[in-house]
Amino acid sequence: MAKQKKQPRPKAETPKGFRDYFGAEVTERQEMLRQIAEVYDRYGFDPLETSAVETVEALGKFLPDVDRPNAGVFAFEDDGTWMALRYDMTAPLARVAAQFRNELPSPYRRYTMGPVWRNEKPGPGRFRQFYQCDADTVGAPSVAADAEICAMLADTLEAVGIPRGDYIVRVNNRKVLNGVLEIIGDLEQPSFADGATWAEIHDRDVEDAVLRTADKFDKVGVEGVRQLLGEGRRDASGAFIEGVGLAPYQIDAVVSFLTARDSTNERTIANLNEVVSGSSEVGMEGVRELEQIANLLAAQGYGPDRIVIDPSVVRGLGYYTGPVYEAELTFEITDEKGRPRQFGSVAGGGRYDDLVKRFTGQEVPATGVSIGVDRLLAALRAKGRIHGTRQGPVIVTVMDRDRMADYQAMASDLRAAGIRAEVYLGNPKNFGNQLKYADKRESPVAVIQGSDEAARGVVQLKDLILGAKLAQDATLEEWKSQPAQTEVSRADLVQHVRAMMERHQ
Amino acid sequence: MAKQKKQPRPKAETPKGFRDYFGAEVTERQEMLRQIAEVYDRYGFDPLETSAVETVEALGKFLPDVDRPNAGVFAFEDDGTWMALRYDMTAPLARVAAQFRNELPSPYRRYTMGPVWRNEKPGPGRFRQFYQCDADTVGAPSVAADAEICAMLADTLEAVGIPRGDYIVRVNNRKVLNGVLEIIGDLEQPSFADGATWAEIHDRDVEDAVLRTADKFDKVGVEGVRQLLGEGRRDASGAFIEGVGLAPYQIDAVVSFLTARDSTNERTIANLNEVVSGSSEVGMEGVRELEQIANLLAAQGYGPDRIVIDPSVVRGLGYYTGPVYEAELTFEITDEKGRPRQFGSVAGGGRYDDLVKRFTGQEVPATGVSIGVDRLLAALRAKGRIHGTRQGPVIVTVMDRDRMADYQAMASDLRAAGIRAEVYLGNPKNFGNQLKYADKRESPVAVIQGSDEAARGVVQLKDLILGAKLAQDATLEEWKSQPAQTEVSRADLVQHVRAMMERHQ
Repeated sequence: MAKQKKQPRPKAETPKGFRDYFGAEVTERQEMLRQIAEVYDRYGFDPLETSAVETVEALGKFLPDVDRPNAGVFAFEDDGTWMALRYDMTAPLARVAAQFRNELPSPYRRYTMGPVWRNEKPGPGRFRQFYQCDADTVGAPSVAADAEICAMLADTLEAVGIPRGDYIVRVNNRKVLNGVLEIIGDLEQPSFADGATWAEIHDRDVEDAVLRTADKFDKVGVEGVRQLLGEGRRDASGAFIEGVGLAPYQIDAVVSFLTARDSTNERTIANLNEVVSGSSEVGMEGVRELEQIANLLAAQGYGPDRIVIDPSVVRGLGYYTGPVYEAELTFEITDEKGRPRQFGSVAGGGRYDDLVKRFTGQEVPATGVSIGVDRLLAALRAKGRIHGTRQGPVIVTVMDRDRMADYQAMASDLRAAGIRAEVYLGNPKNFGNQLKYADKRESPVAVIQGSDEAARGVVQLKDLILGAKLAQDATLEEWKSQPAQTEVSRADLVQHVRAMMERHQ
Repeated sequence: MAKQKKQPRPKAETPKGFRDYFGAEVTERQEMLRQIAEVYDRYGFDPLETSAVETVEALGKFLPDVDRPNAGVFAFEDDGTWMALRYDMTAPLARVAAQFRNELPSPYRRYTMGPVWRNEKPGPGRFRQFYQCDADTVGAPSVAADAEICAMLADTLEAVGIPRGDYIVRVNNRKVLNGVLEIIGDLEQPSFADGATWAEIHDRDVEDAVLRTADKFDKVGVEGVRQLLGEGRRDASGAFIEGVGLAPYQIDAVVSFLTARDSTNERTIANLNEVVSGSSEVGMEGVRELEQIANLLAAQGYGPDRIVIDPSVVRGLGYYTGPVYEAELTFEITDEKGRPRQFGSVAGGGRYDDLVKRFTGQEVPATGVSIGVDRLLAALRAKGRIHGTRQGPVIVTVMDRDRMADYQAMASDLRAAGIRAEVYLGNPKNFGNQLKYADKRESPVAVIQGSDEAARGVVQLKDLILGAKLAQDATLEEWKSQPAQTEVSRADLVQHVRAMMERHQ
């Protein structure tokens, strides 16, 4: 037989921009998602799991008219059909809501948890596969559906371990901003730096410019926003940023909206009323909706310590059509540079109306929230609620290769009592390697039985946690008074191991 | 502005060969996987979750030298690198074991659960995305690792709800078959129908032919196998299938191997010893390994009622290099044609040695099992352990649109008591629609409060399960004596709803 040319060895590498999750990284996420699912379930939401793959046609946005249409998605052709990995959970929901509209209950409350894929340049902390956890209500036009999701979001944060006071759900409404935009549009036409009047510029552009500027409110403050909405602003570096060119009273309207948040929801709503009242129908409708949301939540005991009307929430205002909401963690963490800063947003959502329309032509109202799974996990880690480690197994060491059955029986007894346990299955010749292995596994206890112990019906138990502690900082007296190794009867193995483990809890 | 040409609406369709999972389909799988993970964890296995994507280079088998190299996988090019969705869990484990060989403990016990993707023609019951649930031990050469996985497999089946007696883990060893092949090779050269002698045919071909034939043992029985290993066989349709052309004593050796299973593991092992003893070193080693496995398991209480040495297990013998094991469910189900048949295999695995070698050149022993998640779920359904339904939420109906806050507060109270509950969020005008919705949600109880009830501080509770039952088969007396609707104080809402739900458990 002709010898084949030797192939070079493949590289063992995680693909660029992807991650591998080990041990606690998997179980802690699973446990958090399980807690979230429990809350969602209690609110009547039903799970949905679509496949990772959708047709590019159903995903929308991406046209299969080029060889590789994966602008933002991972796409491939199959039998003449372009398919792609889902880039979010909303597009598959839209497809399902249209496809199964006759079978699904209406309203349809669904939650879903799983990975999504983005074909973006990988960067530090930016991955091309990550988890999303969404809950949406499809087919409920009333703001009671939005209020419900806000309450559920608050419950969810507490359920996973963010205590009350460490988070706030902030609620705004796109319709109020629409009212503000209507009001400024109805007022005198401003003229722009290049001499063009507003009328000459598409409404949408001004809208976008106002939204973009509002989005900088957190960063540049009231004065900065005023400048950016007006003539422009010179930033810290000395660079000049062109302004939107609004007139002062137009700027006032936008700023009154952004700064309407007051000490109580009632006062905030009164402030908003002042901005739009009598001037914009849609704006007043938006304020009424916020008032309803606040009342519905108050009736269920969700006061402004948990959910607050806050018109400075502008993230997503460009995308959503009605109420928007955002969950923010308010405790401080230390950033990479050692400076304290607020943890910030971990979830956001709002109302959108064109969910199913692309498929059926019918408008179906929908509202929903997406939790940033990795950010929320990072928050729990920052709060010390999860630790990135799990209980290692008890290691039954192997002193005598021929007595493997005895060692397996010990591990089996421990497991039957619910204790995580395993027999060392590497080469047992070097006992030091067995203890090194136990160390790497973060094992709490090592079980040792040589032929002498076997003959006497006993085992040695080595308390590895105490051992590590003593090795670190014990005095000679402590070493003597707290023996990290004890001999117990084989018959009492389970009971003694359990006691040893409980000592460290 | 020029009006854009109207795009045709996209089709709302699950991509061909993929599935959407709703409600209980999601939660029942999750719950089963959670139970499995608990057992795996107790055995010291650690979770691993790799990304869905691997480089085609790391996956192996698939060469990126054509435009679309996805023979069997879904592949796409990214920045000059071909990547693909994983088609199983073993290839990613191989990559991880090589990449992190210095960080991971050795032996490394890992489990993993998640979807895999196969680019195959979709067919009935054959999907292009499905779940796998694997556990493997990497770097443990001893058969104690194989025995451990067999015990874990038995524990797992019981943990998810397959009672002892309804399953059997069957164990075989490739090495014994190798011994048999060695023996027949050492004997006289048979001549084939076309006049060629065995020596003229590559060994591998005979090996494959014997494996393929052995694989038909379940179907054609001893006599059928004898014919197929010899001259050939005429099947039920009258068609003649060419035989392998072995001589009678060679056939005897293979058949003695396949039929070696006896009333006890000891006798089975004695039978196997007779087949290979003194004639094949590797065959004897294989028998010794089976004996060790049986002894290790017996010492932990896993007798032949749970795990049995059975040389008729041939599935996978072509792939694995040492022990192979298979979990079979032994209870009967009714197939599509109404005939009773055994449920069959739900998990399989074995020992393989070339896991990491592709990457590092070093041989690393590994053994592992893969559970067919969908088949095991189907088995639990067949056994009535899961039902494909979940508890629907209590529905708080809306009689008075302005009192939404009161209704939300009721749902909130119920949830706080751990009861799944929701307010009807569709258009409340038609009360019949609300009850139809409750029906679709399989709601146990509807809560009703009109303005009259509100004034009196009471609510009506409608027992929907009892109502459905009465509607089906109640007499007039029963209708009267078991009122499906009762009035209770608003203050006692939770307590009465709970009692109503408990009545049906």
